[in-house]
Amino acid sequence: MRFSELMREFDVEEGTFSGDDCSVRRLSDLQGYFADEAAYEAALEAGDPIVYSVSAFTPSNDEGALHCAIARIEPGRIGCEWYLTKGHFHAWRAAAEFYIGLGGEGVMVLESEHGESQMVYLKANSIIYVPGYTAHRTVNTGDVPLVYLGVYSAAAGHDYGAIAQRNFLKVVVDFDGKNTMIDREVFLETLA
Amino acid sequence: MRFSELMREFDVEEGTFSGDDCSVRRLSDLQGYFADEAAYEAALEAGDPIVYSVSAFTPSNDEGALHCAIARIEPGRIGCEWYLTKGHFHAWRAAAEFYIGLGGEGVMVLESEHGESQMVYLKANSIIYVPGYTAHRTVNTGDVPLVYLGVYSAAAGHDYGAIAQRNFLKVVVDFDGKNTMIDREVFLETLA
Repeated sequence: MRFSELMREFDVEEGTFSGDDCSVRRLSDLQGYFADEAAYEAALEAGDPIVYSVSAFTPSNDEGALHCAIARIEPGRIGCEWYLTKGHFHAWRAAAEFYIGLGGEGVMVLESEHGESQMVYLKANSIIYVPGYTAHRTVNTGDVPLVYLGVYSAAAGHDYGAIAQRNFLKVVVDFDGKNTMIDREVFLETLA
Repeated sequence: MRFSELMREFDVEEGTFSGDDCSVRRLSDLQGYFADEAAYEAALEAGDPIVYSVSAFTPSNDEGALHCAIARIEPGRIGCEWYLTKGHFHAWRAAAEFYIGLGGEGVMVLESEHGESQMVYLKANSIIYVPGYTAHRTVNTGDVPLVYLGVYSAAAGHDYGAIAQRNFLKVVVDFDGKNTMIDREVFLETLA
């Protein structure tokens, strides 16, 4: 491979690889992902802001290859719930991933196939290990963009379908200025 | 896995994971790696400084798992040749690796099994892809520590033996203030 194919510079403010396009997810792309549907509809009537953007560096798909992505989640909330990514399992369920914080403050929600949940803090100069067989979502709990890198096997693949169907069992919400991970069902009862 | 096992903070100045021990490589550990043997012996008589240090974050060895290491190469030269790591192939030759620059300025020397070489720049906010079947060495070409992360398959393994026997075919040297990658044999002729 040539030099240009082996190196990327990235912008920790923009959350992009220099010169590369990024994929944008707007609020309208996230129908069904936020718990508070009334707050979601109200926000969408007011506009269709970018929630997050991702760009990938995929130099090879050979056996043993790795891929990398850089992402930026904007600051914001839908009701009490912070802006979030859709989240996914890897299609190759055993595939792990490292997330490396570059800027801002947030959390990752990790959920095993058996429904065990963990909330892990992600910020600049920290690295999170997402084990295999674990759905993962990233949440911006701060008031500036959350920017991070993800490194994963080229063979990992992304399975968004399982999460799109059932969503995560937990939500990360701002209750009186404190970030809390609670059961989606319990949170929905507070809205009823 | 518990929370503490899934996250590490790292110090971009020290080049360590917070609270973890690191492995130190001193000049005396690098016998045979620098081209200019007379300069190496002279430097060793004057002391035995740390050349680089590495610490690893290895949360799992399961199928599909990833490992991460943080390293810091001190600034310095042996003759015209910049401080460097031993360099290695992966034992699983197909295994790739991403290097993520955190501070300082340097280069990576990549050498295929067929002896094709490339020099790629590594600095803060850049990421380098090391393909499979490629020996890789990191070189600090600046006057401050070079600090970086490496992310690789837990199955990659490290094969230092092949490089210890034959060394890299190229050296990275400071010629009149310019970093140059040249043939080791050509460089040795300039010393003779």
